[in-house]
Amino acid sequence: GYSGLPRSVDGLEGAPEWASLRALIPPLGGKSVVDLGCGFGWFCRWARGEGAAKVLGVDVSHNMLERARQQTHGGAIRYVRADLEELSLPKESCDLVYSSLAFHYVAGFERLFSVAYSALRPGGCLVFSAEHPLLTAPSRPGWVTDAEGRPTWPVDDYLVEGARVTNWLAPGVVKQHRTIGTYTRLLLEAGFALTHLEEWGPSDAQIEANPALAQERQRPTFMLFAARR
Amino acid sequence: GYSGLPRSVDGLEGAPEWASLRALIPPLGGKSVVDLGCGFGWFCRWARGEGAAKVLGVDVSHNMLERARQQTHGGAIRYVRADLEELSLPKESCDLVYSSLAFHYVAGFERLFSVAYSALRPGGCLVFSAEHPLLTAPSRPGWVTDAEGRPTWPVDDYLVEGARVTNWLAPGVVKQHRTIGTYTRLLLEAGFALTHLEEWGPSDAQIEANPALAQERQRPTFMLFAARR
Repeated sequence: GYSGLPRSVDGLEGAPEWASLRALIPPLGGKSVVDLGCGFGWFCRWARGEGAAKVLGVDVSHNMLERARQQTHGGAIRYVRADLEELSLPKESCDLVYSSLAFHYVAGFERLFSVAYSALRPGGCLVFSAEHPLLTAPSRPGWVTDAEGRPTWPVDDYLVEGARVTNWLAPGVVKQHRTIGTYTRLLLEAGFALTHLEEWGPSDAQIEANPALAQERQRPTFMLFAARR
Repeated sequence: GYSGLPRSVDGLEGAPEWASLRALIPPLGGKSVVDLGCGFGWFCRWARGEGAAKVLGVDVSHNMLERARQQTHGGAIRYVRADLEELSLPKESCDLVYSSLAFHYVAGFERLFSVAYSALRPGGCLVFSAEHPLLTAPSRPGWVTDAEGRPTWPVDDYLVEGARVTNWLAPGVVKQHRTIGTYTRLLLEAGFALTHLEEWGPSDAQIEANPALAQERQRPTFMLFAARR
């Protein structure tokens, strides 16, 4: 299950895209940070270690928050349980809204960027990753070997946004397929200025250390966004 | 060949994405406009019809420019032959830089957005379409019917940018595959603010009028960008 993944066991360093995501995060000394979909709290603790004055971790999972609390000490990090579809945050209360691989599980997504925008102070940043739409689009996702023996990732329904049921880690997991265009439109409509959009791929050094990552160049798994209020 | 396509015969209205692209274009009354890859000059004449004071059409094809000149009257529209890889434009001389389906033929692309940025007056707009990277990525592009009889578009090499040789309309056509992330990064690096990013799909009415367009929802052909200096 999820708790056995490298990123769950090893934390941020277990995620191949972390170095790229980290590069988008502004200096955190004395800042107030919100992590949407904080899971076990790895990023919350990292942000505190970077000098953040206050960190709020939000997740819908009781179990994950319980484990996050067990591994967290001191009063600067607070965890709350909330569904991101119904989230509300105090206005102009934080400097960074962060989220790693959570947004593609949120169905009623239209208002979330507006909530993040209102919660940020002017000049504040939104930095997030989500599954790439190439991963979430297909009605039957999977690699298929073509006539010449090469791996291909057959795509259909790319512009048909909405729920996809997969059996990744657990049966019947529901993801929400959204295109890059839709994420960008919602960011701009909420008032954000887009500052970064990356379809993430591994470096040569990462592929040398972990040859399975080469597949990411055929069909990316992650996209990273940064935007400024 | 190209001159037999609906968009070549019927002009702008022959292109299904035109209404969406047109919606991104600011009022042109009295403005100065540049069209990069103007082909037969359909857009140049449309812009003049919308009240543009000056229109410059740029294309690499002698034959297309000759036909554009034959169909154009009056001195407000000027055509010049130039390779977009080596283009230069006078600084702060125009209000709109437009391009339809030309950029994915340009190999040395890194400087073109900077050239457009410098050519625009502050507040000026860049509006362009290009082939969607889902179309240009595959090493062997084409629809494949899956085990259950459904059309799929197998993708590989998505993050491997560069030349692709296809046999669309003519044998040995070279296109340049670039991701949405790369187009966006180059725009932002050139100094633009992104104002629109659309992975284009047909409306229900368009599909009813032309059922073949339904395929676009499975795998889009076009993407549309707008940005402001």
